[in-house]
Amino acid sequence: MNKILDLTQMARNAKAMTYPMAEASTDQKNQVLHTIATNLAVHREEILQANLCDIHLAKAKGLDPAVIDRLSLQNRLDGIIDDIHAVIALEDPIGQLIEEKVLLNQLQVKKCRTPLGVIGVIYESRPNVTIDVSVLCIKSGNCCILRGGSETMNTNLALVDIIQSSLEKHGLSQDAVQFISDTDRKYVKELLRLDAFVDVIIPRGSQELQRFCCENSIIPVLTGGAGICHLFVDASANLEKSLDVIFNAKISRPTVCNALDTLLVHQEIAAHFVPKVVEALGQNGVHFRLDAKAFSLCPSSFCELAQEQDWDTEWMRLILGIKIVENLDEAIKHIRQHSRGHSDGILTENRDSAEAFVRGVDSAAVYVNASTRFSDGAQLGLGAEVAISTQKLHARGPIGLKELTTSKWVICGDYHVRL
Amino acid sequence: MNKILDLTQMARNAKAMTYPMAEASTDQKNQVLHTIATNLAVHREEILQANLCDIHLAKAKGLDPAVIDRLSLQNRLDGIIDDIHAVIALEDPIGQLIEEKVLLNQLQVKKCRTPLGVIGVIYESRPNVTIDVSVLCIKSGNCCILRGGSETMNTNLALVDIIQSSLEKHGLSQDAVQFISDTDRKYVKELLRLDAFVDVIIPRGSQELQRFCCENSIIPVLTGGAGICHLFVDASANLEKSLDVIFNAKISRPTVCNALDTLLVHQEIAAHFVPKVVEALGQNGVHFRLDAKAFSLCPSSFCELAQEQDWDTEWMRLILGIKIVENLDEAIKHIRQHSRGHSDGILTENRDSAEAFVRGVDSAAVYVNASTRFSDGAQLGLGAEVAISTQKLHARGPIGLKELTTSKWVICGDYHVRL
Repeated sequence: MNKILDLTQMARNAKAMTYPMAEASTDQKNQVLHTIATNLAVHREEILQANLCDIHLAKAKGLDPAVIDRLSLQNRLDGIIDDIHAVIALEDPIGQLIEEKVLLNQLQVKKCRTPLGVIGVIYESRPNVTIDVSVLCIKSGNCCILRGGSETMNTNLALVDIIQSSLEKHGLSQDAVQFISDTDRKYVKELLRLDAFVDVIIPRGSQELQRFCCENSIIPVLTGGAGICHLFVDASANLEKSLDVIFNAKISRPTVCNALDTLLVHQEIAAHFVPKVVEALGQNGVHFRLDAKAFSLCPSSFCELAQEQDWDTEWMRLILGIKIVENLDEAIKHIRQHSRGHSDGILTENRDSAEAFVRGVDSAAVYVNASTRFSDGAQLGLGAEVAISTQKLHARGPIGLKELTTSKWVICGDYHVRL
Repeated sequence: MNKILDLTQMARNAKAMTYPMAEASTDQKNQVLHTIATNLAVHREEILQANLCDIHLAKAKGLDPAVIDRLSLQNRLDGIIDDIHAVIALEDPIGQLIEEKVLLNQLQVKKCRTPLGVIGVIYESRPNVTIDVSVLCIKSGNCCILRGGSETMNTNLALVDIIQSSLEKHGLSQDAVQFISDTDRKYVKELLRLDAFVDVIIPRGSQELQRFCCENSIIPVLTGGAGICHLFVDASANLEKSLDVIFNAKISRPTVCNALDTLLVHQEIAAHFVPKVVEALGQNGVHFRLDAKAFSLCPSSFCELAQEQDWDTEWMRLILGIKIVENLDEAIKHIRQHSRGHSDGILTENRDSAEAFVRGVDSAAVYVNASTRFSDGAQLGLGAEVAISTQKLHARGPIGLKELTTSKWVICGDYHVRL
């Protein structure tokens, strides 16, 4: 079944397709998305069957239940179809005028929004990424080359088939969305060096995957998707409401990157508040890593003394670090040292503390009195997202439609020469 | 005189200084720039003396006169001081509100402009870059680590001394602008791996330097500064005025990246126009590489038949490639294949051709009836620039103040939880 992969040819074809995609009208692109949504519903049974096959193989391999949960589409297809309609409703960024001016010498200068070109996306077990990324790339006039995980191969092949036939139906070549159907890592390495054709690499997955791409890519990489998220409970915070926020940030979906990892508590309220947190979250299966002061307050069986490396750990499961800090400054200092710049917040009733925290913490998203779980394209009103960037170049935070574009200067004159 | 370089410590110090720099007021930053401008004037003699020393050493080494021209500050210091005043006059981008909205759930969402953090700049022989980059970084609240070329070491040390003392005078640590005073390339390699402290790398120089950085950096790289620039003369163009534009694009400064490399001429006007170009530019020292058709029109002694690789060559000197094309489509096809996406233009009186060219050519700057030499931050009204980016991520075209910033989401709620 495996054909020989000619990745260079795939990338060359994708590059050639960037020109028609850049000129495709909003209407044409939306029609493709409508057809994808329709076909996902029409072929629901085949897709879910392919997905069951992946789930079966994963179970046979003895994979972690959390991984199996991530690769399942069984109750998620309607949500994915809804998301496509949400992207259809978004404004087309391509062709937008970012800036326009006439210079003193009468040169007319415009800066217009254009697609990035070819985007290589490397991801792991969630097959919804195949649809999310393709749909966002099509809407923003880009081409993409996808490389999914081996655990979801059957599901991904079924989904890509639908995407490609939907493109063709509306007169766009299937080269606009291509899929690497061999999970040998040598193809990832090869993709990362095809800078003649590929404009951007987006790795979506583990820290180790991100690192691999940064180490091996000569193409610009947009990294993200890993965070060590903090909440600091100030002395002035409403503690009852704070407990709800902490509960939501840690427990509502512990396996994602915007889930809470470390709770910092002001010393003035620690003796009262830390045991409350441990009790409330502990009853819901959370285990704790506490600094010495907090540990002395909580002799419970699901509490351990934190090791230094615990403050640098993204838990991705029901574990929470808790540290008692002297004041706001120590909280900011801890976050500067240990955060990966994803999502960090303060819970406080004091406006000055809130402002100092916002100024002092340099993360993609900084929260005042809200759960870190809002770091998400859809939650922040950007529509679906490709990933959440924790680097500072190009896109910081959710990578939505606009972040999949670049710009072009268009300069018109009357045979102007530079003096 | 060489002290042992601890690059990790330098980078750690720079990172620590990002917080005070991010909070520095516009006034404080402008005062630093004023002091730099004043001190450059006050210490003019010492700086020019150090520069003469570099020039002397370069001559003794037998370096190319073009290189020696690039490293000379002798008639350029006033221009550099003027440029600093231009940057002082620019609006401070830091803290600007990029976006603001209240979501349906009443979460208040803001996107604010913040500094990138620590920028590593690797450049070659032009010492003005030391000032340009430092001034732009300071104004945009960034810290930088500079690594200049060995040919300008004495000049650079004199300039960095002035920058650092100007920072200190206004209460900012000299860690905000640091200089790697050893040109051993091992330090460049080391810098490219300090991703714990450095946010962005900007190589400013040859294609080979860019490549070296892309190959070796695990930090995001903003590349640029190399282009293969095209002008296409359409059949409808005003040929007399076109000749002026071509003259300007090729001859006004042949050693820079926005100078013309390849001229494409519509076949209908070629027999008349190509000999005119060869005559006019040939009299000014230009040599030509012509395709077979053009060569048959120009038996002059400064004409050679072009080799295939000539279309992929950035000349950086008084050489011009000329190719005759059948029509607009062939011109666009040639540019898509050979341009590096820097600056490409059309000379035409036909509006449809102009629009098709602008749509079809995907370069950082696309020109209609103007010289490619306008691809420059100051010329396009952005003030001084760090480099001209030819990649698509983050910044495309001149990298000015705004391009030295990133953003931060600030989200304020009333103890909001995600449902």
